[in-house]
Amino acid sequence: MPESRPARGERELLRRLSRLLPPAASESVPFGDDMAGVPGTDLLWTTDMLMDGIDFDSRVHGWAAIGRKAMAVNLSDCAAMGATPVAALAAVALNDSTTMDDALELLAAVQACGAEFGCPLVGGDTNSWSAPLVISISMAARCERPSGPVRRDGARPGDRVWLTGRVGGSILGRHLTFTPRVELGRRIGRELNPHAMIDISDGLALDLDRLLEASGCGAVLEGECLAAAIHPDAVELSRRDGRSALEHALHDGEDFELIAALPPDSDAAARGLGLIPIGRFVSKAGVWLENGAARRRVAPRGWEHFTGGGGDCG
Amino acid sequence: MPESRPARGERELLRRLSRLLPPAASESVPFGDDMAGVPGTDLLWTTDMLMDGIDFDSRVHGWAAIGRKAMAVNLSDCAAMGATPVAALAAVALNDSTTMDDALELLAAVQACGAEFGCPLVGGDTNSWSAPLVISISMAARCERPSGPVRRDGARPGDRVWLTGRVGGSILGRHLTFTPRVELGRRIGRELNPHAMIDISDGLALDLDRLLEASGCGAVLEGECLAAAIHPDAVELSRRDGRSALEHALHDGEDFELIAALPPDSDAAARGLGLIPIGRFVSKAGVWLENGAARRRVAPRGWEHFTGGGGDCG
Repeated sequence: MPESRPARGERELLRRLSRLLPPAASESVPFGDDMAGVPGTDLLWTTDMLMDGIDFDSRVHGWAAIGRKAMAVNLSDCAAMGATPVAALAAVALNDSTTMDDALELLAAVQACGAEFGCPLVGGDTNSWSAPLVISISMAARCERPSGPVRRDGARPGDRVWLTGRVGGSILGRHLTFTPRVELGRRIGRELNPHAMIDISDGLALDLDRLLEASGCGAVLEGECLAAAIHPDAVELSRRDGRSALEHALHDGEDFELIAALPPDSDAAARGLGLIPIGRFVSKAGVWLENGAARRRVAPRGWEHFTGGGGDCG
Repeated sequence: MPESRPARGERELLRRLSRLLPPAASESVPFGDDMAGVPGTDLLWTTDMLMDGIDFDSRVHGWAAIGRKAMAVNLSDCAAMGATPVAALAAVALNDSTTMDDALELLAAVQACGAEFGCPLVGGDTNSWSAPLVISISMAARCERPSGPVRRDGARPGDRVWLTGRVGGSILGRHLTFTPRVELGRRIGRELNPHAMIDISDGLALDLDRLLEASGCGAVLEGECLAAAIHPDAVELSRRDGRSALEHALHDGEDFELIAALPPDSDAAARGLGLIPIGRFVSKAGVWLENGAARRRVAPRGWEHFTGGGGDCG
């Protein structure tokens, strides 16, 4: 990447960072996927940090909802690899005004959400300071697939693009209450021979573009199919803010649904699992939206930290 | 613990939290040790979060020093278990004003410090916000000891109290530049049959008290021995602030030396590794300081988050 290219935020930071790392640092998974490998083991692990005012608002959201989200976003990373969560650690920087009861409610919610998915909280680090709350969960997972974890770099032209659920408008509440697709991710991994998978943390268009970049191909989203994947919350939000529901579906973040690249012979099985087809992978780079004969490029916009806009790679 | 007991900050929070967790969540190591076990594996893992203004000051300290410290404090947890670091993840919340070059310098230092100890950085999560920098490292380690990791709960009356180095006054610079005792921790674990070990993150008296509480015994520090364990930085700091060098040695944090409980027959071998004897474990609870016939109780004071005052348990 030439140094003269304008900074593109987090993705650029991750690209430049990846050049600092030993090439074989992570054995089963390349740097930049939803989880990283623990070298010399068959374990995967990931970390996701949430900050007050960015990922939640402690003035509005309850401690239980915040703790649940902190665990759930990491569970979603496991889902995206077709992996089974094993255990978690929680590091927190509590604001000085937080009471012990509040802190316990937060951490109890972290623990309870993990327990629901067979992923106990086994340790962590508690700190306090005068700035807003930060909570960072680390999670270990195991992938029982004989072919290893589902990476994001294996999509091929001819594969179909599938979603595990409808997208857009998560800000109306689902960003806190979503169900991480752990069981569905495992079933896709075991039963559908996926070529690639990623979870939608920062927006359908942006996360699909990440999958495409890793896979070295493009994708055409088919207008009619995509319309069926627009969440009612995207429609409701469109009513409120005048932006189209399609825009919300493409560019809102925190749906925490999975995007899967499946070979065409998986169609029936995919429908059987309730997946929604939204298009096809093609050789031409980029995300494209097709409506009849018309095709337009979709900008890979979404939530990006440090563009200023976070990004997760393991 | 009766609810009427006044809150004692972080330790109390961890006590109350431990009651929420499944008893067998962590198999090889009890909740609250320097590292936790990854269930179903022989791996250990830990997480430590550092915050700007608390653990470092980005207005004064360089990015390279900050990144190094973030990795080194986790390496110190591995040292305390007699474990060998395997790999790390880094989650950061960068302040919006941080440039990409700064962010890269920070993360390159994290990576370089890990590489020095055979512990590659293999992934992470990058975020940005308007509040101060937070960096949270998670680390996996393996313990090759047949008897498992060195826990903090096995000290027995009659054991000797040993330090891996002199303590106090780390704020003069060593809190950033210390060498995590990874190799020494492994050798103590393999060669000296330690009954317990902990690293000094929050102060000799406080961390020793944590080891004592876990082990269910007390310790008598012997004045003359302890005097030989006072770091020159503690003496220098005493000159500046009028508090005694002994006070600094007992209560300053961030020495990142190890406290080891060794059976008396390890004396010669311990001296051979350069360890410093500072006292003995006794059945009577508490930390005691003995000078000739006089004995006084030492308060378990040190750095404690959320007393307001961080604590680390895995």
